[in-house]
Amino acid sequence: MGGMTPKIARFIAEQKPATPCLVVDVDQVEARYRALNSALPQARIYYAVKANPAMPILNRLVGLGSSFDAASWEEVSLCLEAGAEPDAISFGNTVKKVSAICAAYDAGVRMFVFDCREELEKLAQHAPGARVYCRLLVDNDGAEWPLSRKFGTTLDSARDLMLLARDLGLDPYGLSFHVGSQQLSADAYEVAISRVAALFTDLSAAGLDLRMVNLGGGFPVRYRDDVPGIDHFATAISHAMTEHFGNALPEMLVEPGRFIVGDSGVVRSEVVLVSRRGREDGPRWVYLDIGRFGGLAETEGESIRYAIRTDRDGTPTGPVAIAGPTCDGADIMYEKTAYELPLGLESGDQIDLLSTGAYVSTYCSTRFNGFKPLTEYYI
Amino acid sequence: MGGMTPKIARFIAEQKPATPCLVVDVDQVEARYRALNSALPQARIYYAVKANPAMPILNRLVGLGSSFDAASWEEVSLCLEAGAEPDAISFGNTVKKVSAICAAYDAGVRMFVFDCREELEKLAQHAPGARVYCRLLVDNDGAEWPLSRKFGTTLDSARDLMLLARDLGLDPYGLSFHVGSQQLSADAYEVAISRVAALFTDLSAAGLDLRMVNLGGGFPVRYRDDVPGIDHFATAISHAMTEHFGNALPEMLVEPGRFIVGDSGVVRSEVVLVSRRGREDGPRWVYLDIGRFGGLAETEGESIRYAIRTDRDGTPTGPVAIAGPTCDGADIMYEKTAYELPLGLESGDQIDLLSTGAYVSTYCSTRFNGFKPLTEYYI
Repeated sequence: MGGMTPKIARFIAEQKPATPCLVVDVDQVEARYRALNSALPQARIYYAVKANPAMPILNRLVGLGSSFDAASWEEVSLCLEAGAEPDAISFGNTVKKVSAICAAYDAGVRMFVFDCREELEKLAQHAPGARVYCRLLVDNDGAEWPLSRKFGTTLDSARDLMLLARDLGLDPYGLSFHVGSQQLSADAYEVAISRVAALFTDLSAAGLDLRMVNLGGGFPVRYRDDVPGIDHFATAISHAMTEHFGNALPEMLVEPGRFIVGDSGVVRSEVVLVSRRGREDGPRWVYLDIGRFGGLAETEGESIRYAIRTDRDGTPTGPVAIAGPTCDGADIMYEKTAYELPLGLESGDQIDLLSTGAYVSTYCSTRFNGFKPLTEYYI
Repeated sequence: MGGMTPKIARFIAEQKPATPCLVVDVDQVEARYRALNSALPQARIYYAVKANPAMPILNRLVGLGSSFDAASWEEVSLCLEAGAEPDAISFGNTVKKVSAICAAYDAGVRMFVFDCREELEKLAQHAPGARVYCRLLVDNDGAEWPLSRKFGTTLDSARDLMLLARDLGLDPYGLSFHVGSQQLSADAYEVAISRVAALFTDLSAAGLDLRMVNLGGGFPVRYRDDVPGIDHFATAISHAMTEHFGNALPEMLVEPGRFIVGDSGVVRSEVVLVSRRGREDGPRWVYLDIGRFGGLAETEGESIRYAIRTDRDGTPTGPVAIAGPTCDGADIMYEKTAYELPLGLESGDQIDLLSTGAYVSTYCSTRFNGFKPLTEYYI
């Protein structure tokens, strides 16, 4: 559960790796890919490389026939190195340096996202003829890691931009949206699909037939609390697509990152200190050898709440605050969220943070407070 | 101003370094060290290595006779490599792995901080006879980057712990506090010093004479707004020390980090995109090739507000939101703070983020979204 597969448990027991470290079971990555593929067979999967760009993961996914959503030229390059065809790569960042557009285009990438006129003009100049899709701004209610303010544009603006794309000699391919990461509500997809369909109709009336809907990512992973399964989202998405597009279904794309790798990995950490900090009535403070600047960046605002396993589980517990090892006052993972850990927990104990396969290794700082990045194992 | 020394300006003009990059003028580091040393000659300076651990900075400070505040064994090791004597190093993190305590002790470090019984017991066992000082919890009001919740203990608890330190065979050396980073009010030091002095008196009555007060860091750097000069803080500290300790002045230590290196550095960045995002009435969004996960972590909550310089300064400006280059919705530096940038700013322009010598290179993520850490130049 929570990414602690038998293979990872065995690896940790036998190898006793130095902490902090991340152990990822690549077979579990494959299992999640297959689960999504069978729940939503009509959609092509573009793995969001930013969730975890480790080569063993990319290699495995290339072997499974996955496509890839890259956030930068560097990620495009990693996918090519892993054996992906340029045609299986989408440059999915709405904000791209001209040099990155040129490099990707030279490497054969022909699919780019945009959400404003300026970016579209950059693409017209430096990626002539490429397939482009416009990202819509949609509601992120229900997401534990929302994204909306920074990306996407309005329906009206998207309409104008798609027509402009055609005039600029680009291939106006489709529309995308993102309901926010770790999205718990299928409603968010249904609402977004209805808007996308309306714009398809509107543009068709203007003589422009779009061909693709990119549903983004956001499918949740189980951390501390249960989340709806992938079938729940797949059913809602399929219903909404049929309802709004009828028999004229466009190509469907999804961009899962967290869903594919999140519960394929476990972070092993050492308890550095357990302290009451002078107040017998307050919670104990548990300091780990990994914190917000060692990879657990998604604990910002206590947004992502990882499940924690200790060797003392089953013994009496009490409330704790949980913090990282640096001298930074912001390096606190959980202070408001109600966490309990065994009363016997002490300095030197090892603990596991479950379902930490996504968005840990890459957020990690280069050397904040002198601490080296956590070691990664792909097994 | 703001770290844009003539030497840095010349370097950028002549070398045209690829962006994003950090350029630090090591002569300016020396100037800030000398300024603090002459404002507060009675205090020994322990440079907070975590602010910027680059070897050219450590080398220069060793040459100037500085001591060092290290947050980890890795930082202790860097100081030794730079030529610092073990006796000039304080292990200043209240949360230390046993292995780190042992390594530092073996290397000759004899000065350690603690703030709870558990840590004190670790020190007694693994750093026998070392000088130890206890960190007090003090008010961080007035600080732009407060620290208080995670560190420090109460006066009552500190009293008991210092007596325990003696019983455990350690050398109960003194007390420390930290008023919070980028602290704008000298009052914070005065209040803290009065508490420290009261505890000195109390412990002296119990037969234990402490010898050292560690005033921490927190001295502010000028970002967008003026801040009080170092003389203002030095005067307040000196008065408070004399008022509360009279002629029996203890050793005084300070642990500046930001103050020494903050305005010695400039980040050079490229504008990747300027967008209205479909709303003519809203602010423009300016996306840079560096963001919260590329080193500007202290913009979290818009806490640290860097001054920004462009080649179009002096032309008409308008309101902007400022964000980083990643696909992460949290990668927004300034959305609520009133920033204005030239209306003519466009993709490809270069801009400078001033006074970015501290807490940038080390917070930087290893490769979030594929982006490599910013390049660093020490000149």
